[in-house]
Amino acid sequence: MEAHLYRAHPVLDHGFIRVVDYMGDDSAIVQAARVSYGAGTRHVQNDEGLIRYLMRHWHSTPFEMCEVKLHVKLPVFVARQWIRHRTANVNEYSARYSILDREFYIPAPEQLAAQSTVNNQGRGEVLTGEEAARVLDLLKSDANRAYDHYEAMLSQDGQQGLARELARMNLPANIYTQWYWKVDLHNLFHFLRLRADPHAQYEIRVYAEAIAACVRDWVPLAFAAYEDYRMGGVTLSAKAIAVLKRRLAGEAVTQEASGMSKGEWREFVEVWG
Amino acid sequence: MEAHLYRAHPVLDHGFIRVVDYMGDDSAIVQAARVSYGAGTRHVQNDEGLIRYLMRHWHSTPFEMCEVKLHVKLPVFVARQWIRHRTANVNEYSARYSILDREFYIPAPEQLAAQSTVNNQGRGEVLTGEEAARVLDLLKSDANRAYDHYEAMLSQDGQQGLARELARMNLPANIYTQWYWKVDLHNLFHFLRLRADPHAQYEIRVYAEAIAACVRDWVPLAFAAYEDYRMGGVTLSAKAIAVLKRRLAGEAVTQEASGMSKGEWREFVEVWG
Amino acid sequence: MEAHLYRAHPVLDHGFIRVVDYMGDDSAIVQAARVSYGAGTRHVQNDEGLIRYLMRHWHSTPFEMCEVKLHVKLPVFVARQWIRHRTANVNEYSARYSILDREFYIPAPEQLAAQSTVNNQGRGEVLTGEEAARVLDLLKSDANRAYDHYEAMLSQDGQQGLARELARMNLPANIYTQWYWKVDLHNLFHFLRLRADPHAQYEIRVYAEAIAACVRDWVPLAFAAYEDYRMGGVTLSAKAIAVLKRRLAGEAVTQEASGMSKGEWREFVEVWG
Amino acid sequence: MEAHLYRAHPVLDHGFIRVVDYMGDDSAIVQAARVSYGAGTRHVQNDEGLIRYLMRHWHSTPFEMCEVKLHVKLPVFVARQWIRHRTANVNEYSARYSILDREFYIPAPEQLAAQSTVNNQGRGEVLTGEEAARVLDLLKSDANRAYDHYEAMLSQDGQQGLARELARMNLPANIYTQWYWKVDLHNLFHFLRLRADPHAQYEIRVYAEAIAACVRDWVPLAFAAYEDYRMGGVTLSAKAIAVLKRRLAGEAVTQEASGMSKGEWREFVEVWG
Repeated sequence: MEAHLYRAHPVLDHGFIRVVDYMGDDSAIVQAARVSYGAGTRHVQNDEGLIRYLMRHWHSTPFEMCEVKLHVKLPVFVARQWIRHRTANVNEYSARYSILDREFYIPAPEQLAAQSTVNNQGRGEVLTGEEAARVLDLLKSDANRAYDHYEAMLSQDGQQGLARELARMNLPANIYTQWYWKVDLHNLFHFLRLRADPHAQYEIRVYAEAIAACVRDWVPLAFAAYEDYRMGGVTLSAKAIAVLKRRLAGEAVTQEASGMSKGEWREFVEVWG
Repeated sequence: MEAHLYRAHPVLDHGFIRVVDYMGDDSAIVQAARVSYGAGTRHVQNDEGLIRYLMRHWHSTPFEMCEVKLHVKLPVFVARQWIRHRTANVNEYSARYSILDREFYIPAPEQLAAQSTVNNQGRGEVLTGEEAARVLDLLKSDANRAYDHYEAMLSQDGQQGLARELARMNLPANIYTQWYWKVDLHNLFHFLRLRADPHAQYEIRVYAEAIAACVRDWVPLAFAAYEDYRMGGVTLSAKAIAVLKRRLAGEAVTQEASGMSKGEWREFVEVWG
Repeated sequence: MEAHLYRAHPVLDHGFIRVVDYMGDDSAIVQAARVSYGAGTRHVQNDEGLIRYLMRHWHSTPFEMCEVKLHVKLPVFVARQWIRHRTANVNEYSARYSILDREFYIPAPEQLAAQSTVNNQGRGEVLTGEEAARVLDLLKSDANRAYDHYEAMLSQDGQQGLARELARMNLPANIYTQWYWKVDLHNLFHFLRLRADPHAQYEIRVYAEAIAACVRDWVPLAFAAYEDYRMGGVTLSAKAIAVLKRRLAGEAVTQEASGMSKGEWREFVEVWG
Repeated sequence: MEAHLYRAHPVLDHGFIRVVDYMGDDSAIVQAARVSYGAGTRHVQNDEGLIRYLMRHWHSTPFEMCEVKLHVKLPVFVARQWIRHRTANVNEYSARYSILDREFYIPAPEQLAAQSTVNNQGRGEVLTGEEAARVLDLLKSDANRAYDHYEAMLSQDGQQGLARELARMNLPANIYTQWYWKVDLHNLFHFLRLRADPHAQYEIRVYAEAIAACVRDWVPLAFAAYEDYRMGGVTLSAKAIAVLKRRLAGEAVTQEASGMSKGEWREFVEVWG
């Protein structure tokens, strides 16, 4: 983790994450757990086993003993999703006080995806040819025009200049902002589970993945447990358990006989075939 | 409060707040306090006195027993400030799933203020004449062009259509969004204190004022205490107390002799002359 | 739910829970979700399907739109576990201000369990005969003596009387306290999942079960989804998924070949045989 | 702060606080503020002025960028007050898993105060003579007897031994527990303001004071601002402002003419004479 300190890891076209400070590590998790369970943890022979036990049984407080502070540069529409994770501390660059830079997220060609035809919140095939060119052109020219006009409204050259807190309203959601974001490891794992998930929007997922790569180096045992139990794990409903048990007993179960809706069944089959 | 239920109170040009549900009232605050203090509150003769006592002594938990749920329509740049109040529940309209409407906040002429020359986050004089006209024209035309292109990118007419989660990035910060916002009375008072304050940005202050008008009808005793102790109150530093005591003793105290910085002194004099 | 309002449901020997107020129901969850997803949810035909979808995909904010306030009377050692759930509002009876009543939790004979020999935090067989009698006698006589002395120290009869905030320190952890506890449905489900679990201590589990019975009547669709996905569900690690897939393919997998520790394997076998 | 690391500062008869880890310092507060306000803070010449500005204007998020983790040993009745501060991370020693030590808080003779005759939650004169001796004797003998019986119930010598999660209920509220407590500086200041206040119970105040002494060394600029604006400051209601203004203008104002209740007036006069 020391090697990550202050190093900017690039994300998207102009963004980055960098670790500014951190507190605790795998042994801080173990230490907190041993305070809680006292002599009751003596029989657990090693730290890895204890950390896996804590993760498996949803003991969240020992993971809260680790804290990390990141400096992040990110598009505003990503920031709007991110901020919904309330259990964190944030200091964001204020466009009331200061002037934003002319930096916008423009998707790479391979990220220029069509609306999914099966999923209301997903992406389908990648756009190509003229349609792709037109989209890129619109995004670029609108961003630049909006910024030109932002500057024109702010300008005090031969005029008073509009208040910054008003002028900013002209800027589109792909402009970059930045913030300091401080979070404990338990809540960071929760963030990563939702945002590093394949169903998360690509533009936030790449931030989650860049952070995850640092966390792996910071708390290797906790991260391995997180990968096994959270990221790589699944939650089965009572209905799904029943179906699997029938299958294990050799029975072929159909959706109709499963008690699941079509949507649930589709997700179930994605994992279990 | 029953009269407010479901009624939309207009705010700004296209926004509103409306009370969708609520729980508790002045007597719920008193009831909770009496559970806490038991026989210890018997000597307080009336509810008003008890509520004022609670507010004066920063007893926050009885106020947390009241809860209100609002439906709010607001520009995105206002939403971005608002969401920084973390202790609340929010369900916002998702532009990943659905298409936003063509509705933008365009300031009324009397709100088209210049940047303050003395305050980095404030407004100065109102723009007039050609400068005002130019600003309004830019805001309107940029918003409409951005929306036209948003629609053009989404369109599935003769093309695939860009994913909604991508197309939204072209939209400016004055587009309207909406959400359900649920909060307890203690945290709502904190929100109102900061956002109904004269130093808050006008565009969020009018929301705070519209909400405050409902709260006054909902919990009249608590609101009166809030107005007296929070909204109309001031916090004095140890240095300010010392200066006031010297003044009360007949001494004329200068900034230099006050121990305060120029900024502090200016704020002190605003209240005390 | 209206039928539950103000009705005390007895728990343990002197405790109870009663619903004092609530806000929202199944349709409030659906309403909030439809605000978020807009037209994107139109294809979901019914409320039940939508609520199950939200629960399955860990969408917590719509459930936060429901709120309930309970009046609870409970032993102090139960209150100490309960309060660890931080996302709730609490007003507890204060022994600094007022005098506690002479009411103690004394376990019923069938709850007088020995320490588990396999589980550091569990119970084993029920105590019987002389040992059981001795335990009950100690608990009762110590509680009464502690309370006699509490009264003696407080008494202002011929003496000054010790401050209440000091005298209370003599009281044991099985004395009853009471509080108002207000929580949103998402956090309540989290509480119930942990505290209505068979591994939770019996003395808090019975409170969770009494609350669950009210919640079932309050939000039947959400509660059914909670029962299927949370209470009756299990979380499988990546390792456990791999083992089940091998089993489904007809392979017999041993603990050694599973990659799991003995503890994990034991828990796995409890569910899957 | 480095000098405080791991050093136990004794509190009460068997308690302590010790700093186990920390993150950030005065410059981290400044750094976060400068990210937020960008060029808008350039005109503030120095860190001290900026920190005082942030404190004066209730800008809480920069202070949240500092975090501290403490190991605390404290009586259970103190822990019960302390835990009401929800915005912190806690790992407490668990009496479900492990056996508590025979350590009880017994007040020093000068802390053996009578109930206040004017304040429901306060202390009056110190007890003396026979009454004091009787109180100390009761506290000591009850604590020891309770612990003897705790051990007797747990004992597996010739009997099964009661479950630890049950036996603990016999222990009084002055037994010592311990925990790791991690909190950010903003919330720590809030804790200190309430708990280092002269009206706080002595037994928690001494913990707050011991922590405050460490915080002073950790973030001297922030602590000085906290002392001036919070600890040494007062909040005036609109009514109190009006009275002070009349006094400054030479008018003598009585309680009747002040619009304040008798209680408010008494508190007002305590500060202003």
